[in-house]
Amino acid sequence: MQGWKDYQEKNKDRFLEELLALLRIPSISARSENKPDMIRCADAVKEQLLAAGADKVEIYQTAGHPIVYGEKITDPSKKTVLVYGHYDVQPADPLDLWHSGPFEPVIRDGKIFARGSCDDKGQFYMHVKALETMVQTDSLPTNIKFLIEGEEEVGSPNLAKFVSSQKDLLKADVILISDTSMISMENPSIDIGVRGLSYIEVEVTGANRDLHSGVYGGAVANPITILSKMIASCHDENNHITIPGFYDDVVESSAEERKLMAAAPFSEQEYKADLGVNELWGEKGYTTNERTGIRPTVELNGIWGGYTGEGAKTVLPSKATAKISARLVPNQSSIRITEKLLNYFKEIAPPGVTVKAEEHHGGEPYMTPVDSTAYLAAAQAIEATFNKKPIPVRGGGSIPICALFEKELGIKIVFMGFGLDSDNLHSPNEKFNLENYYKGIETIPYFHKFFAESK
Amino acid sequence: MQGWKDYQEKNKDRFLEELLALLRIPSISARSENKPDMIRCADAVKEQLLAAGADKVEIYQTAGHPIVYGEKITDPSKKTVLVYGHYDVQPADPLDLWHSGPFEPVIRDGKIFARGSCDDKGQFYMHVKALETMVQTDSLPTNIKFLIEGEEEVGSPNLAKFVSSQKDLLKADVILISDTSMISMENPSIDIGVRGLSYIEVEVTGANRDLHSGVYGGAVANPITILSKMIASCHDENNHITIPGFYDDVVESSAEERKLMAAAPFSEQEYKADLGVNELWGEKGYTTNERTGIRPTVELNGIWGGYTGEGAKTVLPSKATAKISARLVPNQSSIRITEKLLNYFKEIAPPGVTVKAEEHHGGEPYMTPVDSTAYLAAAQAIEATFNKKPIPVRGGGSIPICALFEKELGIKIVFMGFGLDSDNLHSPNEKFNLENYYKGIETIPYFHKFFAESK
Repeated sequence: MQGWKDYQEKNKDRFLEELLALLRIPSISARSENKPDMIRCADAVKEQLLAAGADKVEIYQTAGHPIVYGEKITDPSKKTVLVYGHYDVQPADPLDLWHSGPFEPVIRDGKIFARGSCDDKGQFYMHVKALETMVQTDSLPTNIKFLIEGEEEVGSPNLAKFVSSQKDLLKADVILISDTSMISMENPSIDIGVRGLSYIEVEVTGANRDLHSGVYGGAVANPITILSKMIASCHDENNHITIPGFYDDVVESSAEERKLMAAAPFSEQEYKADLGVNELWGEKGYTTNERTGIRPTVELNGIWGGYTGEGAKTVLPSKATAKISARLVPNQSSIRITEKLLNYFKEIAPPGVTVKAEEHHGGEPYMTPVDSTAYLAAAQAIEATFNKKPIPVRGGGSIPICALFEKELGIKIVFMGFGLDSDNLHSPNEKFNLENYYKGIETIPYFHKFFAESK
Repeated sequence: MQGWKDYQEKNKDRFLEELLALLRIPSISARSENKPDMIRCADAVKEQLLAAGADKVEIYQTAGHPIVYGEKITDPSKKTVLVYGHYDVQPADPLDLWHSGPFEPVIRDGKIFARGSCDDKGQFYMHVKALETMVQTDSLPTNIKFLIEGEEEVGSPNLAKFVSSQKDLLKADVILISDTSMISMENPSIDIGVRGLSYIEVEVTGANRDLHSGVYGGAVANPITILSKMIASCHDENNHITIPGFYDDVVESSAEERKLMAAAPFSEQEYKADLGVNELWGEKGYTTNERTGIRPTVELNGIWGGYTGEGAKTVLPSKATAKISARLVPNQSSIRITEKLLNYFKEIAPPGVTVKAEEHHGGEPYMTPVDSTAYLAAAQAIEATFNKKPIPVRGGGSIPICALFEKELGIKIVFMGFGLDSDNLHSPNEKFNLENYYKGIETIPYFHKFFAESK
């Protein structure tokens, strides 16, 4: 489709400038102080959808951050693709590890460095530019709907209500999501599953105030010590999770599936070198890709307590707190695992401390059927632009809303991610390769074409 | 001595106002940003010593914070008392737990609330006002020297050099320190021992950057999990410390000593109620007073890693760090224990992480002989003003410089502390009861009198 290619080549610089403008808005959904930025960002998304050719765009208020909905209906008899993405981003800290401001995007070595460059502003914006390409070249073969929310990074607490009350609006033949990654540009891949998520916060309280560790040390429970013991107890010596019932619903992958996974290109040496570690770590009996793909995990996301400043302070703190999350595989239930996690930490609390365990957001795991027309259209599109058949892989991340989409709307989801695992999602120096951004914009119209043509 | 009492009663309000002015200076030695406050505080101490009647006061610069030295030499043939104290204070955070500003002292319910009110500005200042009392009533029976340093809360890194190079200046017959507490006003006590201290910081690093906990979780070592396991391994199920060789040099207290300790008034119920805990915690086989008095401990003073902000962030952090200290009992060596702690954390680091373990300050334990003339003078002084013989007790805190004083100057130390364990030392809402402050000023001249009269 030379017309697409020509249009994109001609407008390349503008496509980038527009994304950079979006990246300059610190749309951190977790932080209440960024509420005005969230509103500003939703407005910017609306403007860009209209500019790209959407003929109806609405901002829907929620109890949290607004949802942007847009559509371009060419012909009701044509197939409809619902693009889901999110304009909110993860918090940027630790700020001191960024080489440039998280919200001051810079291009270095062919990469866009900014919070949200890949997750997910850069990726959903490829769809906006793909829409523009097809509209401007008069070649849109489908109807397109956009659902760009502002709460994905905090578990989409208000999207469920919106989806269940707007079933007509969101009617579509497939949901297309670019919020995952591929193995590499040389080995394009398609995620056929995302893990579920349970996320809790555990606060251990000892004495009613911080104490002098000399005067009281040794006689009063130290919440950091207790919390550490509780955390340590979550994994056994084989890094198998010991929380009662945690694996109950896990369906073991077949030998066949594991063999297929093992065939995907993977260099442990490169993986270790990229991470700067001399040894990997994980559940005994599973490979690295299995550990991140088909096995559930319990990870510590944050911990704090006592004196964390410069120098030394001999305090026996009153409190210590941890943020803990579990990634879940198909057939596990986020609701049941969250309950098990909360109960576990409450039940193992020793005398002398009190434990408060509370839930953050969660989400169910999801699998895409590899024989669906949408999956096949995605595979064909990638083959058309990468000249290589994509490899189906199981992704480690979570998109909590997937299971809900399927349940409420009865639509299958296909993931077409153009990021890389090394894009530092959720980390300092998040980046998105320019090449990947442009390749995404190039590939997406093919998806619409092949999906429109499929039976 | 009615003259003393009259003078003190008449100048009561000024004695308090002067202390409050000193408490308004945020002389936090651990924070480099407070360097100007440290200089300001040293100057204020100098002015107050001169105003109280010292006839020579000098500020000595060090590689860190200045030392204030002052003296009032009445007659070289008289006995000399060297008062040691410190004008630096602990950091004030967590600030949100203070009911009033840590450096905006307020009087509430007969208590002075401010950082440093008890530890140690309030306590060393009692000696300044005792000097004034004796000078103004022309009744100073001894020579007095003051050594008020600004680095006690960070382990006195520069005092050793000063002491060993100023042996003549610091020549004295006893060192008197008010930086400890008593059981209660009804049960006055004298600390006959302070514990030693080893303090280390352990940093565990996994991957070279923060990672997405979905993409990498389960396959890469999580430094919070690893650090928690390391911390958990420091105590066994009886809360006995498991670090190899930790107890090697501990001399077990005799049954006789333990029996004496058990006779000191102590209500476990009141202790628990004050701390707001339903159970105490500690090494099996020892009572609460033994756990804080005659047993060494390992305490967690701080921990941090990963995301500690509002909401949820699914990060697998690159680093986790803990501040860990040990309290040591007589015959343990801070140098040897620090080495054991550092080695322990380095040696148990599993593959997949690197561990950096570094030393903060330390200090040796110290015991005062209960048959020394100085101890007996202190006991007599307390009996004179409290109408009750003080109980000798083993304190849990540390005054790292004590062992050094004895070694370099060959002088015995006596502790005359007027604080209470409930004074929230090193914690939010540190306080010092007005009654204790005035009682200290009243008692100290008696010490000089009885010590001067002793053979």
